[in-house]
Amino acid sequence: MIEIERKFLVTSTAFLDEFRTKNRIVQGYLSSVPERTVRVRIKGDKGFLTIKGKSSDSGMSRMEWEKEIALEEAEQLLLLCEAGVIDKIRYEIPVGKHLYEVDVFSGENEGLILAEIELESENETFENPNWLGMEVTNDTRYYNAYLSQKPFKTW
Amino acid sequence: MIEIERKFLVTSTAFLDEFRTKNRIVQGYLSSVPERTVRVRIKGDKGFLTIKGKSSDSGMSRMEWEKEIALEEAEQLLLLCEAGVIDKIRYEIPVGKHLYEVDVFSGENEGLILAEIELESENETFENPNWLGMEVTNDTRYYNAYLSQKPFKTW
Repeated sequence: MIEIERKFLVTSTAFLDEFRTKNRIVQGYLSSVPERTVRVRIKGDKGFLTIKGKSSDSGMSRMEWEKEIALEEAEQLLLLCEAGVIDKIRYEIPVGKHLYEVDVFSGENEGLILAEIELESENETFENPNWLGMEVTNDTRYYNAYLSQKPFKTW
Repeated sequence: MIEIERKFLVTSTAFLDEFRTKNRIVQGYLSSVPERTVRVRIKGDKGFLTIKGKSSDSGMSRMEWEKEIALEEAEQLLLLCEAGVIDKIRYEIPVGKHLYEVDVFSGENEGLILAEIELESENETFENPNWLGMEVTNDTRYYNAYLSQKPFKTW
């Protein structure tokens, strides 16, 4: 239930030549409080409910619980969510032994592209593709829960 | 996904002669906001995650989504919850065609006993047992989410 992730800005769209899957993600928050976020997500034709705890001091580790739920249930729960739905296209890009998830945001977060990589441990090494920019793991403004309340266009 | 319920105070412990099941319930809230409560519950040896929307004007109807989850997951999610865990014994009491759920609270809500009945429609009739007191369906102070933040002993 502990998830270790690092997050980066993306400096070019070169990742578009290398992606394996592409899905639209629409997600809202029943709670966007950093200590306990509750997220409703529709990814492609699937629904998910995800609960995350507060990040560790490094910003890399976080308790995460996720269950797939019926699409119609996710659609109904989305209606209950706080104002500020996140809409993005997610590309999955294998790089070396790892998988980068690159999110191209639209709507109120248009212009923002973020890459995430999930690791086994906080000090695990990984390959940096040439489209990978500055690390923002520790910058809470790039949390999707934060972006739902303070979207990129308002920065 | 719409739940119709009415809630009453309980005036005596006569229901203890009639109950069918008895379970300890421990529950906390990932969100206690009335527009979207997210509840983690352990009932006996089972775990549940429940999401409820805002009540209708009558106070009787409310969107509700619930899933059973693993006990260990519920225990871990309880640790993420807001301060103010609810601890109570629930008795199920068949009365006529309906089932009353009577909750005897302990801890910070000691002294409070509430009965709930689930109905098929807002104007459905039901039997009132002699231990049933004043209706409090519309009184938000008796919501468990509210009680977790403003327990009965502090009133």
